[in-house]
Amino acid sequence: MIGDPIGVHFADRLLAAIRDKNAAVCVGLDPLVERFPAALRVPAQSEARSQTADERFATALLAFGRGVIRAVAAFVPAIKINIAFFERYHAEGVHAYHQLVHDAQAAGLIVIGDVKRADIGHSSTQYALAHLGESDAAHAGVVDAVTVNPYFGYDAVGPFVDAACKSGRGIFVLVQTSNESAAAIQGLALADGSTVCQRVAHLVEGWAADPRLVGECGYSCVGAVVSPRDGESTMRVREIMPHCLFLVPGFGAQGRSAEEASKCFKPDGTGAIVTASRSVIYAYEQAAHRERFGDDWERCVTEACSDFVAAIRAVLR
Amino acid sequence: MIGDPIGVHFADRLLAAIRDKNAAVCVGLDPLVERFPAALRVPAQSEARSQTADERFATALLAFGRGVIRAVAAFVPAIKINIAFFERYHAEGVHAYHQLVHDAQAAGLIVIGDVKRADIGHSSTQYALAHLGESDAAHAGVVDAVTVNPYFGYDAVGPFVDAACKSGRGIFVLVQTSNESAAAIQGLALADGSTVCQRVAHLVEGWAADPRLVGECGYSCVGAVVSPRDGESTMRVREIMPHCLFLVPGFGAQGRSAEEASKCFKPDGTGAIVTASRSVIYAYEQAAHRERFGDDWERCVTEACSDFVAAIRAVLR
Repeated sequence: MIGDPIGVHFADRLLAAIRDKNAAVCVGLDPLVERFPAALRVPAQSEARSQTADERFATALLAFGRGVIRAVAAFVPAIKINIAFFERYHAEGVHAYHQLVHDAQAAGLIVIGDVKRADIGHSSTQYALAHLGESDAAHAGVVDAVTVNPYFGYDAVGPFVDAACKSGRGIFVLVQTSNESAAAIQGLALADGSTVCQRVAHLVEGWAADPRLVGECGYSCVGAVVSPRDGESTMRVREIMPHCLFLVPGFGAQGRSAEEASKCFKPDGTGAIVTASRSVIYAYEQAAHRERFGDDWERCVTEACSDFVAAIRAVLR
Repeated sequence: MIGDPIGVHFADRLLAAIRDKNAAVCVGLDPLVERFPAALRVPAQSEARSQTADERFATALLAFGRGVIRAVAAFVPAIKINIAFFERYHAEGVHAYHQLVHDAQAAGLIVIGDVKRADIGHSSTQYALAHLGESDAAHAGVVDAVTVNPYFGYDAVGPFVDAACKSGRGIFVLVQTSNESAAAIQGLALADGSTVCQRVAHLVEGWAADPRLVGECGYSCVGAVVSPRDGESTMRVREIMPHCLFLVPGFGAQGRSAEEASKCFKPDGTGAIVTASRSVIYAYEQAAHRERFGDDWERCVTEACSDFVAAIRAVLR
């Protein structure tokens, strides 16, 4: 199913964008209308005869997302948009999601669709077509990469690999997630002395190392989501997966430091892209930013984004 | 977070519906336009100046889904709609999905949204609100139950439990799936002699057995997806999870027999609902049905559905 690739390889493209901005970071857009600046929030929360609640909230999501894109596009190579926060508002929200994917790409950003999808093979194919598109199409709303859940094994991942890698796109398979209860399954001790998470890492590396999937930079279009929740486990996983770029969640509001995130990189400073979401997109809630920029929430986001870029740069020196 | 329940408990409601129809079965709607009867397929595949491709395909999905609902509603208690096949057509497809959820409920069916979602807690909350609604709302498009992926542990499942159980709705957590590569992770041998799948079963039973979540019938609003892929493992999982209703995929086109599916039931004939998708909804592709009903594809679906109901009834006697 893996055909001749079209366009530049995803990993080469992402690494070039990281070099270009000198920033191995990605802003996560997980927008909750309840936390928006009043000018966007109040109209969404006010009943209007002419619009449904889904329409009003989707309008607010779109306006906020566009503000974040304007605020960060000059500083970061990529944005990760979590579809959960859009799907909440049904078809209207999904429409806003696809519009933002288009807008972010038009602003020069690589867009990671944080969809965490997976199903048995023929259903996963539908998700892959939805988010990564047909091989030859530059369909509006098609992202540059998606996140995929590994619980079904390769049947669920393969359709995404097929769709991604032949069109210069990529996938990030969940390996070690950032949440409290992640270890309940991912941390289980296996009979061979390793853990579920390490075994998943071996599986993903096996998929990623297929020479047809590896770019000139040596990384594959198949990457992994790895939170540096546990330092030792993170270093082990980094060793297991030399061909995988890591998408690293958990920075900022989720409590992970730049120092911890640095364990996801190789000694040459490549191999990972760190995401921060709430600490950047809600920067206007923080007094330090608000004191400087008042109600100009986009400038608060820009400043928090610059701080985030600088923090990651500092630990990669 | 678990409040006082509203309405009849999900498990009591599902069991009553199964008794009422004398059918522990569920039709799965996984519709591929490419396999539709020509009268629905050709207009979708024909370019039209006035409609986008997403609009044309969503229109076909809606018409087909309505035909299936008409064909099966008298015979089965529930329908499972897989959102992947709708999401493929972006916002238009998602809109058709929610319309079909509404139509199926209006036809008296319990609707299982086969969404297989999961994310870290605050993102999972958004998915839960999208699909199970606010506690007090009878929002159009809110389903009676959803499928949830366990890879994140309870953080990802909890928001669905909270949303479901206080409003007479339910969830089915993926435990043992029906696909070829499922054992790559689910079948891993743990240090304690069990498997990942069995450990997940223990976790899910632990969540399900909370007395606040158990209905008068003794089953919880937290159930499990269990494919009878492996007979021995299935019987073990049935023992581990006495409080869980099983949603049983893999019958028909996926190769599982009624005899195998029967291992998901308790000796009293309760505890599971078996789904068949492609073998029922594409019945008009089978010569035996087409010879009797010609181009009347809905009657072919009705006949295949009756056969399916009879096959499960026979093994539960």
